[in-house]
Amino acid sequence: MRMAFFGNSVKHISVLNSWCNQTRCRFKSIHSKISEIFSAPPSNTPAVIKGWVKSVRKMKGMIFLDVNDGSTCHKLQIVASKTTVPKNLSYGCSIVASGPVILNPQNQLELRAEELSVVGSCDLTNGYPFLPRKSYDAEYVRQYLHLRPRTNSFSSLLRLRHHASWTLRQYLNMNGYIEVHTPVLTSNDCEGAGETFFVKPNCKATLEAMASPGQSEDEVFFKRKAYLSVSGQLQLEIMARSLSNVYSFGPIFRAENSKSRLHLSEFYMLEVEKAFLDSMNELLEIMEKLLKSVLSTVFENHREEIEHYRKMVNCADYTDVENIISKPFQVLTFDEAKQILRDHSGQFQEPLLEKEGFTKEHELFLVKLNNNVPVFIVEWPAHMKPFYMKASTHSPEKVLAVDLLCPVVGELCGGSLREDDCSILEERMQKLNLTESLDWYLDIRKYGNVPSGGFGLGFERFLQMALGVSNIKDAIPFPRWPKNCKF
Amino acid sequence: MRMAFFGNSVKHISVLNSWCNQTRCRFKSIHSKISEIFSAPPSNTPAVIKGWVKSVRKMKGMIFLDVNDGSTCHKLQIVASKTTVPKNLSYGCSIVASGPVILNPQNQLELRAEELSVVGSCDLTNGYPFLPRKSYDAEYVRQYLHLRPRTNSFSSLLRLRHHASWTLRQYLNMNGYIEVHTPVLTSNDCEGAGETFFVKPNCKATLEAMASPGQSEDEVFFKRKAYLSVSGQLQLEIMARSLSNVYSFGPIFRAENSKSRLHLSEFYMLEVEKAFLDSMNELLEIMEKLLKSVLSTVFENHREEIEHYRKMVNCADYTDVENIISKPFQVLTFDEAKQILRDHSGQFQEPLLEKEGFTKEHELFLVKLNNNVPVFIVEWPAHMKPFYMKASTHSPEKVLAVDLLCPVVGELCGGSLREDDCSILEERMQKLNLTESLDWYLDIRKYGNVPSGGFGLGFERFLQMALGVSNIKDAIPFPRWPKNCKF
Repeated sequence: MRMAFFGNSVKHISVLNSWCNQTRCRFKSIHSKISEIFSAPPSNTPAVIKGWVKSVRKMKGMIFLDVNDGSTCHKLQIVASKTTVPKNLSYGCSIVASGPVILNPQNQLELRAEELSVVGSCDLTNGYPFLPRKSYDAEYVRQYLHLRPRTNSFSSLLRLRHHASWTLRQYLNMNGYIEVHTPVLTSNDCEGAGETFFVKPNCKATLEAMASPGQSEDEVFFKRKAYLSVSGQLQLEIMARSLSNVYSFGPIFRAENSKSRLHLSEFYMLEVEKAFLDSMNELLEIMEKLLKSVLSTVFENHREEIEHYRKMVNCADYTDVENIISKPFQVLTFDEAKQILRDHSGQFQEPLLEKEGFTKEHELFLVKLNNNVPVFIVEWPAHMKPFYMKASTHSPEKVLAVDLLCPVVGELCGGSLREDDCSILEERMQKLNLTESLDWYLDIRKYGNVPSGGFGLGFERFLQMALGVSNIKDAIPFPRWPKNCKF
Repeated sequence: MRMAFFGNSVKHISVLNSWCNQTRCRFKSIHSKISEIFSAPPSNTPAVIKGWVKSVRKMKGMIFLDVNDGSTCHKLQIVASKTTVPKNLSYGCSIVASGPVILNPQNQLELRAEELSVVGSCDLTNGYPFLPRKSYDAEYVRQYLHLRPRTNSFSSLLRLRHHASWTLRQYLNMNGYIEVHTPVLTSNDCEGAGETFFVKPNCKATLEAMASPGQSEDEVFFKRKAYLSVSGQLQLEIMARSLSNVYSFGPIFRAENSKSRLHLSEFYMLEVEKAFLDSMNELLEIMEKLLKSVLSTVFENHREEIEHYRKMVNCADYTDVENIISKPFQVLTFDEAKQILRDHSGQFQEPLLEKEGFTKEHELFLVKLNNNVPVFIVEWPAHMKPFYMKASTHSPEKVLAVDLLCPVVGELCGGSLREDDCSILEERMQKLNLTESLDWYLDIRKYGNVPSGGFGLGFERFLQMALGVSNIKDAIPFPRWPKNCKF
């Protein structure tokens, strides 16, 4: 009975529908994306386009606009009679236009505007940083992060980033991997490098309300110190011991005072972990196949957009991606790589240090020497790698780790087989004073353990390599780096 | 010439392949996932299975195992002769088994093990918290977050979470939305509720090296205070003004001292923003269609797994999802909803306060009254909502906001049209002292502005509603809540 009242007092969505249709833009039902217009042949039926004006050309009694709505790199030409053009129409403004789409005598798609109105104007004389028909270098554009997506090159990057991340997920899903959302907030420092951000509530009242006597303020909220994750690998190892094949793909943080063209304070990492994996070769195979498949799929499906992007950024660091897709990756042990570098020591600047790994210059040199085909570096000295990597059976001072070196970026991926011998692990963890905080990590090996391994791939570096983005800050929507965290 | 040396010193992957095959598990090439075996009819050809033992039954000279590898909710029965069974075979251990898969006289798939070995044993007497054939309540299991994925119910939840997040993305991609990775680190507090976590480097040396004279330590790293994002909406508004239709799907943080069954300190949120959106009705349509489509796709494609999960968690809060998929959602204004509650005030505990919104009890009561079909609440008092929402044209003290109330969880989504009148916005921001920190937010409206709107959906609550998960901590792999941040 009570439902009777309820039923009477409300508008059903169908009622609301008809009510709203009266006040809604009359064009709504036939509003098309520009991508749809370019993918379907023009039918001469009227279309409605909503987007931003990328250029304005006036000729005789006509006005020609290039309009983009973000759905594609293509701009649709809109032709209108000067008499119907609103006064505040200019470069940068947003418009709605309707009329038939035709193929013009120059074989271009063209919307013959019967109606054209400005939705939001754009005053070029009042602070808008981009002038029409002028291209700006990335550093200038980066000063205006909130307007950067309006540039043709960065909106193209955003679409390509989307396609690349979708293709990565698709590849892993099709290969039976399950995505796990590993936490950003963590009480572990997986890499042990200490480059973590520490986190606490910003609100004093919350801290006061939650505090226990004698407790450090830093431990109040979570009853222990909490950090931003530098890797989800240890958590993925938990998951691989139930779901077999897992991955995570999300933001990762480093509190490093590094402003290089390859470092960010917040970046995206794909991490893959596979159970019952006990061979380095299988791990390399997984990495190489993933990289080749994802690159070739993205290039097959989005070649036009990629060419458009590359033309705009005019990349000096042009990568021959076909080369990466078609040629087998090289495999070198750490010692072999070091020997090669020694043999070519005149050809690079930075000295090769005995007890240390490679600098970015060394990495890029090795790749160049291999004709810009990626190189796996395997069998690393244990002291250069985190505690959890599996000891090599032939040389106990080595671990079964791998770095994948690539054109443009040097190290793109890092991985390893994980140490599955509980007593070796426990000994190493005792030395590092980790047995208490990582007791659970030993637990997952005590019960129903399996050999496992995996790798991480820096997603922005992947984009840098695939597209030729020279600065990593131009491969992510909102870059964060030392002294910079706007928005 | 130098390549000659390089070429000689290394093993090509093909060489490494054959070298590794000798030391690798001889079963590797025909290792099958249990999901593959259940999706393809048995062929009587030998298969190799790697997974974990879920139960052991001994009968006469035979042993029967149920084995799962995480690829499906199905367990494969493995039958072996007692004489070939290793001593440390037990519940919880990991195994490799090979032999033909047949359909047995009981019409069940069965692997007749010719070889069977234990990879990692599981000592039940030494701390493993789960006994065979015993089911535990969620609270007990949650004490062992690192072993929780080993339980049948939680591994099922993890697969369903993966399927649901994939389906959400798929739906948005197919409808022309572009995924944007909005930042976790931010200098804005979008909701203005002050429930943010503050972030700084953990390393004293980094802080000292980067400090400028007179600067607060809290501002050293980013030159301003940085927080964890409570919403990516403002950033999505930037993106919608170039790409038109965008979404983000990632972790979101609240430093609230709340331990309810519906709150987490870190949770996943889907956020959608659409340009050229100027009607509340269109916004409701987008929300309703997305929810219905995603629910019906997940239920169509994974019904067996969902039924399996629901049986195990034995959910009291059973949701009739068919009802949500097939019936039109209700629409009420805030005032109408309040009147309905007043008229039924004897039927719930918590008092209705004049100047306030609804409690969880009120929300759930409204949904129940609507036969457990979701209810949109529209036209909210402006003082209850953030500054950026569009003022209603009929009643200026109201804003064009919407909360979607659903069974089990109450508020599932919140959205609005965004205020696009620059002078109204500026006035509100001045009152809140935001014009300096959010100058860019005004900028994106000054240049080529468009009306826009969107919503956020709490992903764990979506899972709670869809699957009947009573506590949100059991809907996420690594829950973080006050006093809890393990791993």
